[in-house]
Amino acid sequence: MRLRRVISSVLLLALTSAAQGETGPVLVIHGGAGVIRSSMTPAIEADVRKALRNALQAGYAKLESGQPALEAVAAAVVVLENDPNFNAGKGAVFAHDGKNKLDASIMDGKSRRAGAIAGVETVRNPILLARAVMEESPFVMLAGKGAEDFAKQAGITLVQPSYFRTERRWQQLQKALADEKNPQASTDGGTHKHFGTVGALALDKQGNLAAGTSTGGMTNKRYDRIGDSPVIGAGTYADGHCAVSATGWGEFYIRTVAAHSICMRVELLKQPLAEAAEYVINKDIPTLGGDGGAIALGADGTIAMPFNTDGMFRGWVAGDGVVHVAIYPDEDESGE
Amino acid sequence: MRLRRVISSVLLLALTSAAQGETGPVLVIHGGAGVIRSSMTPAIEADVRKALRNALQAGYAKLESGQPALEAVAAAVVVLENDPNFNAGKGAVFAHDGKNKLDASIMDGKSRRAGAIAGVETVRNPILLARAVMEESPFVMLAGKGAEDFAKQAGITLVQPSYFRTERRWQQLQKALADEKNPQASTDGGTHKHFGTVGALALDKQGNLAAGTSTGGMTNKRYDRIGDSPVIGAGTYADGHCAVSATGWGEFYIRTVAAHSICMRVELLKQPLAEAAEYVINKDIPTLGGDGGAIALGADGTIAMPFNTDGMFRGWVAGDGVVHVAIYPDEDESGE
Repeated sequence: MRLRRVISSVLLLALTSAAQGETGPVLVIHGGAGVIRSSMTPAIEADVRKALRNALQAGYAKLESGQPALEAVAAAVVVLENDPNFNAGKGAVFAHDGKNKLDASIMDGKSRRAGAIAGVETVRNPILLARAVMEESPFVMLAGKGAEDFAKQAGITLVQPSYFRTERRWQQLQKALADEKNPQASTDGGTHKHFGTVGALALDKQGNLAAGTSTGGMTNKRYDRIGDSPVIGAGTYADGHCAVSATGWGEFYIRTVAAHSICMRVELLKQPLAEAAEYVINKDIPTLGGDGGAIALGADGTIAMPFNTDGMFRGWVAGDGVVHVAIYPDEDESGE
Repeated sequence: MRLRRVISSVLLLALTSAAQGETGPVLVIHGGAGVIRSSMTPAIEADVRKALRNALQAGYAKLESGQPALEAVAAAVVVLENDPNFNAGKGAVFAHDGKNKLDASIMDGKSRRAGAIAGVETVRNPILLARAVMEESPFVMLAGKGAEDFAKQAGITLVQPSYFRTERRWQQLQKALADEKNPQASTDGGTHKHFGTVGALALDKQGNLAAGTSTGGMTNKRYDRIGDSPVIGAGTYADGHCAVSATGWGEFYIRTVAAHSICMRVELLKQPLAEAAEYVINKDIPTLGGDGGAIALGADGTIAMPFNTDGMFRGWVAGDGVVHVAIYPDEDESGE
């Protein structure tokens, strides 16, 4: 068993947003909890902060103009998918077979409608395909070739698989393959190979929530493994009370039905959002042996962003319209 | 909107099982909630009752001999998968492309370990592959070709796709395809084309729970649609308090995270199992427009089997070792 550091990093924002109506708008995003502090450089940090800021601005503009939470979630996630710094869309990690296989899901809180796709290889923005599944099909979850057939019919933008390739991710796969042959030489025990997922949560001016998550999954994943990101309840969930997007060791998030667990604690136990998220992410999942983080947003505008890794790329804009981005635990209160 | 009959059919068994230790053993199974009373015949009913009885005997024998709940769940589901009367394994429905694509999942309550597979075409007993994913891989959920590659490596029995074919299911696909071209001629609005899933729940002599579900999904499904059966939290869930296997219109079970919702109400609200299952299956899901049923089993041996269709193939054996099977709502108390 490796050392498990449980760093509590929960933020409670009591929002005062009279100008925007009773509750919002609010946008929260993450770019994964796989931050390894020792391997960060000022250049990478600056790049990531800029990308997070761009995503927040794109999403918040939708909310400010009165559009639904779902629009803001999609807009923010698209920016992160298009940015090679994150393990989603362009820049996704490689599976064992040298391919990029992308998963995503989206959920509208008010209607509890949802869409999810797993294992697509030619869809530029998987979050938009997940949304099309939700809005234009009778299904919730599609996989692989079938999901791509649906994407064609729905007019979703397709790209060559090479679009997703980045040299950095390719080298990560080569390292994972080498580590696999010689496990004792592995420097990180493989523990961070599966982080980098992106996600967004929004609360719109009408008081409705939405959640979305997109990922390339786990470096060196095999057998068409599906992680938590496209599993409604595990990596993504939204209802009338609460919205969650998770990022971490997906198997543990599926087993704990992590996103839904947080929202059930809020709804059924009337637990404050931060306590509920803290319990699931920093207590229950580590007890089973997993790690990672999540972002959560309540219908009252409360935000929680717990994680138990070195850092989680994250950002938020609340009622005051100020863009905050953060990476490490000690940045929580100050923002950028 | 079609007429929605919400028939409450909840059974509470207060078990006295001193001979088997404090709590059990108990086995509960279902063979789907897609029963259309007008299309049943005495011959079909007799066949189904016999199959349910066989499944209960196979599973209960494991429990009586002191084996874990997981063994009993797998044994019972295998019997149902091998029986062509049910939409799982042999006798599964056909997808739009004329193939049988099978989904299954299994979960151990004590450890909350889980395994799930979606869209396999050559695995004779999908529940055994789900179990192998849980026990022999670092993953929880595998799909399609990758899942079949894993099955080969794990030594799971493979069959030709033609093994799954039954004339009855083939004709159902032909009818669905015809209805699609001429929707107004459809006799059932397509509402029952997706039922027939099988599942089992067990409580072993050690007081541990397990749950498993297996299905061919929805007749005429497209785009490699994944339903609720292989989604942990939706179609299958087990923890230390509660186990659930669902059968119904899968999209609604994913959106409501149905199985997990029932167990969360038991754990967090301390709601009696029957009330929790009744709320999710007969209130929340119908409110969204879905229908179907579920079986639920508490760590105290309590059983609930709500559904809102004409009938649900189901059966149970509790502390007294007596095998009960039932199809229609009015059979609940008397068993067979």
